[in-house]
Amino acid sequence: MKKAVYAVIGGDERYLLAANYLSSLGAHVRIFGFDSGAIVDQSVTVSDSLFSAIHGADYIILPLPCSIEKGLIHTPLYKDSISLDALFCHIKPNQIVFGGKLDTSFCAALAEKNIICHDYAEREEFSILNAIPTAEGAIEIAIRELPFTLHGSNCLVIGYGRIAKVLCHSLAGLGAQVSAAARKESDRTWMQTFGYKPIHTKDLTEHISQFQVIINTVPQVLLTRDVLRQIKQDALIIDLASRPGGVDFESAKELGLKVIWALSLPGKVAPQSAANIICKAIFNIIDESEVNA
Amino acid sequence: MKKAVYAVIGGDERYLLAANYLSSLGAHVRIFGFDSGAIVDQSVTVSDSLFSAIHGADYIILPLPCSIEKGLIHTPLYKDSISLDALFCHIKPNQIVFGGKLDTSFCAALAEKNIICHDYAEREEFSILNAIPTAEGAIEIAIRELPFTLHGSNCLVIGYGRIAKVLCHSLAGLGAQVSAAARKESDRTWMQTFGYKPIHTKDLTEHISQFQVIINTVPQVLLTRDVLRQIKQDALIIDLASRPGGVDFESAKELGLKVIWALSLPGKVAPQSAANIICKAIFNIIDESEVNA
Amino acid sequence: MKKAVYAVIGGDERYLLAANYLSSLGAHVRIFGFDSGAIVDQSVTVSDSLFSAIHGADYIILPLPCSIEKGLIHTPLYKDSISLDALFCHIKPNQIVFGGKLDTSFCAALAEKNIICHDYAEREEFSILNAIPTAEGAIEIAIRELPFTLHGSNCLVIGYGRIAKVLCHSLAGLGAQVSAAARKESDRTWMQTFGYKPIHTKDLTEHISQFQVIINTVPQVLLTRDVLRQIKQDALIIDLASRPGGVDFESAKELGLKVIWALSLPGKVAPQSAANIICKAIFNIIDESEVNA
Amino acid sequence: MKKAVYAVIGGDERYLLAANYLSSLGAHVRIFGFDSGAIVDQSVTVSDSLFSAIHGADYIILPLPCSIEKGLIHTPLYKDSISLDALFCHIKPNQIVFGGKLDTSFCAALAEKNIICHDYAEREEFSILNAIPTAEGAIEIAIRELPFTLHGSNCLVIGYGRIAKVLCHSLAGLGAQVSAAARKESDRTWMQTFGYKPIHTKDLTEHISQFQVIINTVPQVLLTRDVLRQIKQDALIIDLASRPGGVDFESAKELGLKVIWALSLPGKVAPQSAANIICKAIFNIIDESEVNA
Repeated sequence: MKKAVYAVIGGDERYLLAANYLSSLGAHVRIFGFDSGAIVDQSVTVSDSLFSAIHGADYIILPLPCSIEKGLIHTPLYKDSISLDALFCHIKPNQIVFGGKLDTSFCAALAEKNIICHDYAEREEFSILNAIPTAEGAIEIAIRELPFTLHGSNCLVIGYGRIAKVLCHSLAGLGAQVSAAARKESDRTWMQTFGYKPIHTKDLTEHISQFQVIINTVPQVLLTRDVLRQIKQDALIIDLASRPGGVDFESAKELGLKVIWALSLPGKVAPQSAANIICKAIFNIIDESEVNA
Repeated sequence: MKKAVYAVIGGDERYLLAANYLSSLGAHVRIFGFDSGAIVDQSVTVSDSLFSAIHGADYIILPLPCSIEKGLIHTPLYKDSISLDALFCHIKPNQIVFGGKLDTSFCAALAEKNIICHDYAEREEFSILNAIPTAEGAIEIAIRELPFTLHGSNCLVIGYGRIAKVLCHSLAGLGAQVSAAARKESDRTWMQTFGYKPIHTKDLTEHISQFQVIINTVPQVLLTRDVLRQIKQDALIIDLASRPGGVDFESAKELGLKVIWALSLPGKVAPQSAANIICKAIFNIIDESEVNA
Repeated sequence: MKKAVYAVIGGDERYLLAANYLSSLGAHVRIFGFDSGAIVDQSVTVSDSLFSAIHGADYIILPLPCSIEKGLIHTPLYKDSISLDALFCHIKPNQIVFGGKLDTSFCAALAEKNIICHDYAEREEFSILNAIPTAEGAIEIAIRELPFTLHGSNCLVIGYGRIAKVLCHSLAGLGAQVSAAARKESDRTWMQTFGYKPIHTKDLTEHISQFQVIINTVPQVLLTRDVLRQIKQDALIIDLASRPGGVDFESAKELGLKVIWALSLPGKVAPQSAANIICKAIFNIIDESEVNA
Repeated sequence: MKKAVYAVIGGDERYLLAANYLSSLGAHVRIFGFDSGAIVDQSVTVSDSLFSAIHGADYIILPLPCSIEKGLIHTPLYKDSISLDALFCHIKPNQIVFGGKLDTSFCAALAEKNIICHDYAEREEFSILNAIPTAEGAIEIAIRELPFTLHGSNCLVIGYGRIAKVLCHSLAGLGAQVSAAARKESDRTWMQTFGYKPIHTKDLTEHISQFQVIINTVPQVLLTRDVLRQIKQDALIIDLASRPGGVDFESAKELGLKVIWALSLPGKVAPQSAANIICKAIFNIIDESEVNA
């Protein structure tokens, strides 16, 4: 990596760790949007203004999500606030902006000013790599909450996207009996190929009573009241699906089922890995831009 | 399994779960040595005296360890106490006693009375099976404590006994880079066979700086001050060795190293599995006695 | 499966095995297009004419490829020949035709006659399942040809499609050191996730000298003279790519490199599995038709 | 490794490959007991007499087995013969002799002359490492002979010694359904730990009909006529046990069962690995002698 200047503006703990990581790789790194107590390596510059952080930087890193409150950069570790407008004023052409779930109007405005911006959260490898800490987080929950071992237990993973693929692999690696549910014939054929018992999603109701651990990865309420009714009383349900989740939580509560809704695991379970994954996606974007340039 | 009568006398949560398990398999089960709040399945009989629990039982199950305070059965869930002597008075020939780490003088006394007693904790399969929840417990700790994923991390397992073998297998199953340290050439050859990097225990000092996770299974202080000095500041050390442990804890503290000493994991991480393992060992003993009879 | 009538017309050994398999599952099966010596189970009817085979059958199974010589059904185990026209004359509406690599004009003609035809070779699950015998075939070749074990050897799989995914998994399962080469960042990220060393296809030349086993799955000449020049003299190259293959065979010969071009492995390595895979694809097509009907 | 002088006297192809390997590691290597056509690297000295080969050598390597015909070194690639007596005359104290299955009287004679001799075939790591090519050889046979894939097939491994452990691991790595049979409870518990279905050897008869592949590793006729009678007609039996083997071959023939008796697989399947394993055992012996010296 060439000696580049990065400005990391806001975000949670992962962005401090990302700053450290970039610095450890030899980059000049400045941060802004964190309270004075934030702990970073000595080699990282803590800028005293947004302007001084951004001025002359090659790359500007914004958090994922870039904004929660409209018009403001997401700065959970900062008592003040930073507006996207303020940022916009300071950025100059040939600076490159990276952020997660970037607002389209903000991107459009940057484009008009001839400033390139990239959404690293849309990168395929970003999602794949984040599946690893997500799977480990789910496994940690399962080991902690279950009164028996994952080894030898009957586990069902619902869905067969990125997280599910990694999760099935890891659960099998721990000696669990792994089944997975998907609608697509080709997904179910892959399951068979890798040694997981395939189930058609439409047949969940008839199969679900045999499982002690049920992990949902599909952002759609597949665990409806009818399905939940068939689940063993002492089973553990872990829902990894983003809002609104994949479980009829009301019904689960009424039925006395144990459900753990685990969101945003990478940042919680493995913040350093999550930080590295953000940097990795950014490096890949930079590499590809250079190849294409 | 034939319809047998079991008396479970004292012990921790595992023994209540064992009582449930035995009952679910069709046995008559009585318990004594637990406070009235103890939760067991309806099918389990809560005896109101030691005598009524033992009288007519085929098998009497004592806890592991059978005694902590001399002369008393270990009854952590009971406000009163039960002496081994009281037990001894009630037992009759052709009843069979099972316990863990049984006192030799107690066994000798039983033998004189022509009562057979077995120490299930001495069974090889008991130790092997308990390695599974121990390994899962260690993995849960590692996922929880590390700021990065086990996947891709450099892990060292010290020792290559039962726990270490299961742990190496599970860590590799999660995508960790696994090394293991042992003194015996044959152990190191097995490591190589299963894809773990072998290290000679005498060379720990020179290799240990590369590891982010170090899990000790050897009940001997191999992680001395000299070895600890070489360990990375942000490494995680998990000690699974029973007292006195495998780490110079004083030095580790001074050096600012993070050490977690995790003991008796099976009962904590997976009490139901731990209970089943106790029952499994007892069933094997019974089966073998019948074959030999 | 309901009691259906199948007519299997022509094809190689796999189609005799498919006939047996269908019959063992309870179907009525007739075969035609095989010499009298062909061995099938007693329960399979050997028809004495094309007409009697097809007449009243629910399903007609043609081989993969359906035709090699234009206008004729591929019948390598039959001394006579069967024309597609003859077949066409006998088929009636509501019979369903299955074949592999079906001629579009033949399909169009059938469609006009309101006869449904399906190409089972186009099914995703057909390709996935065939990757398994292909991978085993490649592994058998490697074990046979190499003077050392696959365990511990440095293996490169070129490509990351279906066959490559299964092959990487199996090679790793045997203890090989597995690398794989692909152009797509997401493919390389998946490799990393599953523990294979990722290589960018454009960097083959610089990495290829470290490998003892090189297995190509890409139907494109990636192993050009320039790349071949870097390969170790005692390396083994297995080319699984269909015609024209993935190796500059001329140059490989001049350079004294050992290349094995292994085509159509499923039928050779595991004809019974290959037969079952054909049936499985046909069953899936039937199931889906019924669901949609 | 220090620059040492090795004399390799007789043996099969593995010993030529061992000579090459030792030479490639920087040792001086001389060979004797091979016909002039034997191909070795240029760096290896082909001695023209037993005396010139041995004179001044630090280490003398004899084959495994050292002798087949009494009094002669086993020299299958040599038209003449070499007697142990001739060798004995030339050896001097402080030369070290290595051989496989060494004759005790020969060793005793050497000892009297104060010459140390070691049997590398008795080393535990020698046996473990040879289990790898043996397992790969068995897998190659199975893939070649079976009409279906190992993936998804029901495989039984009889015994749970070194070869069986490696074989179970590899078969599982290829996606087979693995069962194993052993008498010891602890062996069966390890099987369960690693995900293989355990069977008690005494119950072979009742379970064996479910298996498509049966691989015996126990040098004792466990596959008696009674057991063979229960085996599926189309099953494949591979016997890896040394003479007299583990199968009642007569009965198997009468019953029309397919049995392949595969002996000495390492030298056949992976002669280079087999050669390296011999050298590895010798290096370990040398290392240990130096540590103890």
